Amino acid sequence: MARYLFTVAYDGAFFSGWQIQKGVPTVQEELENALHVITGGQIRIHGSGRTDAGVHALGQRFHADIPEALKIPEENWPQAFNTRLPHSIRILHCREVGADFHARFDAVEKSYVYRLVSDRILMPWDYSRVGHYPHAIDGDLLAEAIAAFQGTHDFCSFAAVRGNEPDPVPEDFYIRTITEASVRRNPGGYVIRFTGNGFLYKMVRMMMGTGYAVANGKISLDELKSLLHSPNGNKTRFCAVPQGLVLESVRYEKKGV
Amino acid sequence: MARYLFTVAYDGAFFSGWQIQKGVPTVQEELENALHVITGGQIRIHGSGRTDAGVHALGQRFHADIPEALKIPEENWPQAFNTRLPHSIRILHCREVGADFHARFDAVEKSYVYRLVSDRILMPWDYSRVGHYPHAIDGDLLAEAIAAFQGTHDFCSFAAVRGNEPDPVPEDFYIRTITEASVRRNPGGYVIRFTGNGFLYKMVRMMMGTGYAVANGKISLDELKSLLHSPNGNKTRFCAVPQGLVLESVRYEKKGV
Repeated sequence: MARYLFTVAYDGAFFSGWQIQKGVPTVQEELENALHVITGGQIRIHGSGRTDAGVHALGQRFHADIPEALKIPEENWPQAFNTRLPHSIRILHCREVGADFHARFDAVEKSYVYRLVSDRILMPWDYSRVGHYPHAIDGDLLAEAIAAFQGTHDFCSFAAVRGNEPDPVPEDFYIRTITEASVRRNPGGYVIRFTGNGFLYKMVRMMMGTGYAVANGKISLDELKSLLHSPNGNKTRFCAVPQGLVLESVRYEKKGV
Repeated sequence: MARYLFTVAYDGAFFSGWQIQKGVPTVQEELENALHVITGGQIRIHGSGRTDAGVHALGQRFHADIPEALKIPEENWPQAFNTRLPHSIRILHCREVGADFHARFDAVEKSYVYRLVSDRILMPWDYSRVGHYPHAIDGDLLAEAIAAFQGTHDFCSFAAVRGNEPDPVPEDFYIRTITEASVRRNPGGYVIRFTGNGFLYKMVRMMMGTGYAVANGKISLDELKSLLHSPNGNKTRFCAVPQGLVLESVRYEKKGV
């Protein structure tokens, strides 16, 4: 077996998310189908994590094990994949890794970008690519609200229930460290960037939605901070639409990855 | 009757071009359908010109006559339209004009932009939005070839046959003046801009395709220039794909337009 780590970009508008589900198009299924055409085998791929329906990726990662007999040079993998994938998915990069490497368990940092358009009229080509919130908001307040997420916190209030949580939930289950939570003003809107050592289910969209609710005057900055600093099981009511979200990059510490 | 001039953006990927054709989706048909829902009447719209299947617009213009009884303030027109249009078409602006104004005959200048990606791998979201020419080309030669189109020329070699040309063809039929033909280098590709007093059928794509053929070494710059300076009825063999083309703006000289 040879284990390869792939970098993949996809347009989330075409998929019901990353993870295979019966009867709906998913990124994982398209990739496994392409791998089947290339190798003739049924090979499972392992993503760095899932993305929701409608969420895009610029630098999602996954690994797969290829039987030695089917090995091809790593630099040939992107084209081998891309000629068999729909245009909405592109393999950007491939690197051979050791048998002990795991795309999910070895990820040490991820970055997400959220593109928000506040213009009243959304350009046709932005429809599935940004979060459209056509209201005048206080940009400084948005930056202050988003910055509040930076640091190490219990993000229980900003995690949707997936249904497969352990019972009882370990004490550190919802603890994550956000190293970057920044807002950049853009013509017609904002670009928000989150980097951290891990993100819970829908966490970026819930942080984004709650930060926006502060900027839009729906809740106060103190209310956001109390959800963050004294979580009591209550979840935030706000979750930004998926269209604006892009998984930008996944970082590993192992050499050569 | 009140005559209104509209500015409209659309994503050409969803349409078989501007002009109504039976059995295929067109921008004109969607706009006339929306106008029918708003006014209850069958109202013809008049574009500044056609765009081909797959070609986009940021600032296409059209005018329409609305019966006095159905008049609404000009600033209310964009929303009235946009709530009844698919997301792939957005009305950006509306201005009331005089009864003697005509969106096509009064246009004095148009600008087109062509986005070309030369990277080997095309990002998923660029698929229907750029011309993908994944070859290393000489950017300086591209700029030189494109600049050759600037000025007043007989563009017969760069006009596709539409089939409704007058017979005999008047001497000045193919003469146009290009005031800007420029190339800007971009990460991963080029942005080419053409401004002129008018463009023939497929002219921008044929200029673009021929300029690219020079940069790619398919023909010489002298061959391009001879097509341009001594047209003998021969058409260029090169026509760039429509995906990269955007009608950026249409200008009028009349006041308040």
